Amino acid sequence: MNKNNTIDVVPLTQELMNCPSITPADAGALDVLQKALEKIGFTCQRLVFSDENTPDVDNLYARFGSEAPNFCFAGHTDVVPVGDEAAWKTGPFESVIKNGILYGRGAADMKAAVACFAASSARFIENSGGNFKGSISLLITGDEEGPAINGTRKVLEWMAENGERIDHCVVGEPTNPTKMGEMVKIGRRGSFTGFLNVIGSEGHVAYPHLADNPIPHLTALVTALSNLELDNGSEHFQASNLEFTTMDVGNTATNVIPRTATATFNIRFNTHHSLDSLEATIRACLDQAAEKNGTVYELRALKNSEPFLTEKGDFSTLVANAIGQRLGQEPELSTTGGTSDARYIKNYCPVVEFGLVGQTMHKVDECANIADIEALADIYTDILERYFA
Amino acid sequence: MNKNNTIDVVPLTQELMNCPSITPADAGALDVLQKALEKIGFTCQRLVFSDENTPDVDNLYARFGSEAPNFCFAGHTDVVPVGDEAAWKTGPFESVIKNGILYGRGAADMKAAVACFAASSARFIENSGGNFKGSISLLITGDEEGPAINGTRKVLEWMAENGERIDHCVVGEPTNPTKMGEMVKIGRRGSFTGFLNVIGSEGHVAYPHLADNPIPHLTALVTALSNLELDNGSEHFQASNLEFTTMDVGNTATNVIPRTATATFNIRFNTHHSLDSLEATIRACLDQAAEKNGTVYELRALKNSEPFLTEKGDFSTLVANAIGQRLGQEPELSTTGGTSDARYIKNYCPVVEFGLVGQTMHKVDECANIADIEALADIYTDILERYFA
Repeated sequence: MNKNNTIDVVPLTQELMNCPSITPADAGALDVLQKALEKIGFTCQRLVFSDENTPDVDNLYARFGSEAPNFCFAGHTDVVPVGDEAAWKTGPFESVIKNGILYGRGAADMKAAVACFAASSARFIENSGGNFKGSISLLITGDEEGPAINGTRKVLEWMAENGERIDHCVVGEPTNPTKMGEMVKIGRRGSFTGFLNVIGSEGHVAYPHLADNPIPHLTALVTALSNLELDNGSEHFQASNLEFTTMDVGNTATNVIPRTATATFNIRFNTHHSLDSLEATIRACLDQAAEKNGTVYELRALKNSEPFLTEKGDFSTLVANAIGQRLGQEPELSTTGGTSDARYIKNYCPVVEFGLVGQTMHKVDECANIADIEALADIYTDILERYFA
Repeated sequence: MNKNNTIDVVPLTQELMNCPSITPADAGALDVLQKALEKIGFTCQRLVFSDENTPDVDNLYARFGSEAPNFCFAGHTDVVPVGDEAAWKTGPFESVIKNGILYGRGAADMKAAVACFAASSARFIENSGGNFKGSISLLITGDEEGPAINGTRKVLEWMAENGERIDHCVVGEPTNPTKMGEMVKIGRRGSFTGFLNVIGSEGHVAYPHLADNPIPHLTALVTALSNLELDNGSEHFQASNLEFTTMDVGNTATNVIPRTATATFNIRFNTHHSLDSLEATIRACLDQAAEKNGTVYELRALKNSEPFLTEKGDFSTLVANAIGQRLGQEPELSTTGGTSDARYIKNYCPVVEFGLVGQTMHKVDECANIADIEALADIYTDILERYFA
């Protein structure tokens, strides 16, 4: 192996960031990555998936080696829209470096981490002379920020069908709230969305006895659900939480009592519940409140994801140690925050998440410290060394 | 006076109904009426009023005679839109008569009553030979179903400026809930509309501690106002009532806590309150609920109309007796239902309201019984006879 097989992490990050790969567009990002990986000996498979009512999405599965265990880095090259482009200090797809900070969409979430996957793999392969027992693979989707229908879930199904087993996985999502090395995610809460519809009877406000206003019925249900204590959390999880996200009637006539009123809520919940048990709890609470007021309601449940926990053990210790070694601080093992594609991977193997600082993700002037990116590449390299030791 | 000076009430009603005079369109309706009134000796004034942000509207003030007292019939020739035209059994502007029932927009509300004004005046003038002390006038607007800005209120102002004093007034709105002669309106509740806006702080549903969801804040305010007992009614008025008419957030992202939430309510209230005292009551209730939860809210008050009561007395007795004489049943003297232009007229003279059955007004297949229209013309004639006796 010679110097030609190394990968410089910051230039690769910039090359990825210069592709405006807003979901579902790939804009050349996967080609950039594939070229870098093939140069260091990875075998690459491009996987375009289709589904009704959602755009086709391109994905990449790359593997170095053929033996077990297969260590997997997982992530995505798609990014969220730029938002108010005029508010950006630099072009969102220009990857400008100023005072040691790299600016642009995807810097934090998560093109730099994807570049770190490749650079760390190159370094580990070079350092080991390619002589290690096992494989390194990259599962990179272009549909993480979008509907997530033609992305990681389908790549994993394709892998299972084609005998591509993975044994442990690190997802490179930005996990640190404010500074590098603070937090590893070892699980995620589940997510449940409920669409509530209350049916009353319309009429004129001057004749309320001839109508049945759905608004007080709905507010009673909203109040009942808002006051529902789901649990007190657990060792690894904060308490489950329900938030109403909207409440709509859409009646513009101030002298008309409307017929229906709707509200939507989302629950982030821990392993005290499953999607099914949670739905039963919610329906019982609604039924009780509805019975008291003679409320007629409908609930449509969208069961987004089950909660999961990768129990603290050898693998999370290995990752935490690599972080502590490089940054002098043991990370918190947490289950906070939103969902990620780890929710699909946990069905196949133990998965933990560690990446950059998430503070600017999805925002104008998204950015990442160059020093943090270099630390992340070092940590990923150390994880590979500890894993294959 | 000869037969040429009589007016046949049903054909005139049909002629008016054939004009598609959906507010603010006049569509020739006032011309039809003016022609009929001029033929029996009325002097007619057409009054087109304008205002910013609202269409110009044509109105008619007609007077027979120049002496006091001036008895006034008030009403409107504009109608509400047809709604679902395909659902009508007959053309909404075709005034079809089937089995003794006249179908079409405006049959009940209130072109037949306007035709009765003219037909009764013709009959009274003919019967009296034109020899009575006083005047008969008609105040007919084309802006009762619309914003009511360029209608009755401005006609009354114009009349005051031009020395056109009226002494007593009958408004011909449909006042009977189910059958002819049940109800005279001797007052109306006031109307107050409130636009409520709650300001929270937006955020991601997975990080509720970084946000302040306005929806539970709003539902607490809605609950507080819905539970507020304004009064128990009075001899002439039912209890004041508050209804929420809409509640909107408009957030389509199920993972986002919104920043603001709005709701609108309308209060129909009796003479225990004025618009100002009611606003103070509402703000006190909101402030108390807001303080408990640290809620930030804004209230915009739209003070539509004060409540009023034409005290039972000679005039309402006169009208009730005329009704009882023709129909064999004394009507209830009521203050129920929505607002009407009587709210403006009560500032100038005693006003009572009596017209047809309101059951089908504003609906598909609006209709009026021919027998009811003929009874109404007889009753209006009797009112004139009693008034000028």
